[in-house]
Amino acid sequence: MSTTLPIIALVAGDCTGIGPEITAKMLADGAVQKAARIVLVGDVRVIELGMKQAGVSFPYVKIASLADADWSAAAVPLIDLGNTDPAQLPPGIASSLSGKLIGDTLAAAIELAKAGKVDGITFAPLNKRAMFDGGWKFADEHKMFAHLLGHTSYFSEMNVLDNQWMSRVTGHSSLREALDQINEESITDAITLVDTMLRRAGFASPRIAVAALNPHAGENGLFGRDEIELIRPTVDKVKASGINASGPFPADTIYVRAFAGEFDSVVAMYHDQGQIATKLKGFNRGVTVTAGLKTVFTTPSHGTAFDIVGQGVARPGALVSALMLAAKLAEERSRQAALA
Amino acid sequence: MSTTLPIIALVAGDCTGIGPEITAKMLADGAVQKAARIVLVGDVRVIELGMKQAGVSFPYVKIASLADADWSAAAVPLIDLGNTDPAQLPPGIASSLSGKLIGDTLAAAIELAKAGKVDGITFAPLNKRAMFDGGWKFADEHKMFAHLLGHTSYFSEMNVLDNQWMSRVTGHSSLREALDQINEESITDAITLVDTMLRRAGFASPRIAVAALNPHAGENGLFGRDEIELIRPTVDKVKASGINASGPFPADTIYVRAFAGEFDSVVAMYHDQGQIATKLKGFNRGVTVTAGLKTVFTTPSHGTAFDIVGQGVARPGALVSALMLAAKLAEERSRQAALA
Repeated sequence: MSTTLPIIALVAGDCTGIGPEITAKMLADGAVQKAARIVLVGDVRVIELGMKQAGVSFPYVKIASLADADWSAAAVPLIDLGNTDPAQLPPGIASSLSGKLIGDTLAAAIELAKAGKVDGITFAPLNKRAMFDGGWKFADEHKMFAHLLGHTSYFSEMNVLDNQWMSRVTGHSSLREALDQINEESITDAITLVDTMLRRAGFASPRIAVAALNPHAGENGLFGRDEIELIRPTVDKVKASGINASGPFPADTIYVRAFAGEFDSVVAMYHDQGQIATKLKGFNRGVTVTAGLKTVFTTPSHGTAFDIVGQGVARPGALVSALMLAAKLAEERSRQAALA
Repeated sequence: MSTTLPIIALVAGDCTGIGPEITAKMLADGAVQKAARIVLVGDVRVIELGMKQAGVSFPYVKIASLADADWSAAAVPLIDLGNTDPAQLPPGIASSLSGKLIGDTLAAAIELAKAGKVDGITFAPLNKRAMFDGGWKFADEHKMFAHLLGHTSYFSEMNVLDNQWMSRVTGHSSLREALDQINEESITDAITLVDTMLRRAGFASPRIAVAALNPHAGENGLFGRDEIELIRPTVDKVKASGINASGPFPADTIYVRAFAGEFDSVVAMYHDQGQIATKLKGFNRGVTVTAGLKTVFTTPSHGTAFDIVGQGVARPGALVSALMLAAKLAEERSRQAALA
């Protein structure tokens, strides 16, 4: 296997969900091993559980550290944390202990990234609430990642499907708090980050639409002046810097236009604005990217699917897409860094 | 024709748009004349324009007042206001004069309703901005209707498609103002009005979902406490009064569930929450109802379609649905009033 392929740490997700099963299916299929040098980070018992649930197997080999990994062999290297005993964590039931453990496991993968040993992290679904209840007191995993990486400036979750990247200025905050977080700096950061990520994903000049905040984009000031006083001037400044952004557009039609192919990305002002549109469009078949941190994280947009755990019917498609995207983004970053 | 059919005033909409054309097509087809006693209110020149644009004709007869209307004849009674000369108002171009005139025309229809002479009003598309610029200084036509009817309490625009009725607690206000308008009274009013309208439309026990305000319905208080302190207690009180309401549900999945058939209605907290979902679902093929006023108003959800005016290609389907719905709602209200 090429030694130039990016190294991606793969975490099988919360073991009470479908993560272990789809991880096993993906690795047994083997396609992703051609796109990245994969190292499993987690508990070997969780990996064995996944194979059993999926009715598949793939070769793996425990390693003590990344230095021992040999990607020329067929066996997937596995760093066994020995921390998660699935026998204690019944499938299909949310568990704060399991939430704590998946947080610990992700933290171990992040340590590898901080040490420069992996180029990206892909993780199978987790349960935000279980993680919070288990002691990882963050509104979402993205905020936990930022904290562990010591990242203090802007970053964002992005939702990717069919080459469209949906992003937002604010995230997991109350709507009132989100309104207070929308300003020139946060809007600029959001648009700039989308542009950076899309260029890294291979777009030459990403077409970025910016959503308005108020109904009908404020209807020329009838229903709010944020568009006139804040959003349009900010979009204009960003455009002047060479980014192919436009807007603000009324939020209730911009997604219709984007899904019809007019834009590569829509930057929403707040969580539900984007999520209502993307969930209706089926973005849960897609990939969620934590963008803006030093390490790229990708995960399937769907959840732990407690209702089908252990039945062998869960499909690995979104996890495969997540891993492929992490590999592509990591590879392109290395290439651009080498050119710089 | 039955003298028990409801009397519906029909306004052909802004004459610079497709309203006259689809009005002519609908009346030439004739199906709606079997569901209601229709009286055209407007300028005869606009009706003639519509016939010419559509390439159809239908019989009409000018009347001086409703008392002269004879619905046993084939000719559609027409009250000619003589106020709108389409020769002065080029098709396909927004015009504040045309906006003023469509407002005047609707006001004349509302006078008939106030006098108890018509049971409902259906109007072809208008242009909100043109009306505002023409001197009807309301955020939307619904607010103008309420003003002219002297209505001061809650009312709402509803969007109807395929037997689903989408409503909202707040409307054409800035998002910040909308947040300040969401309280126990407005939520209760919105749910109660949906229940009333759906019962009138024939639902025995309408299944009403109430959307949350914050991301993930506040995630148990992590991202806002409106759901815990306000929305859930209010929904519970409404349920206790015998209305089949439930929620609050996360806004980004409740529309997916409703469109799959789980609910007859979703009550959004604010404009874009509902409109993002309904526009993606194609509710512009549906009907917009002004609900909660003494008079029922219906209109196609689509707009004036300036890009296709005068080409003869505009389709009357949504206008037909609007008129049929106005007739049904008016008829059922009379029936319920007679029973009471």
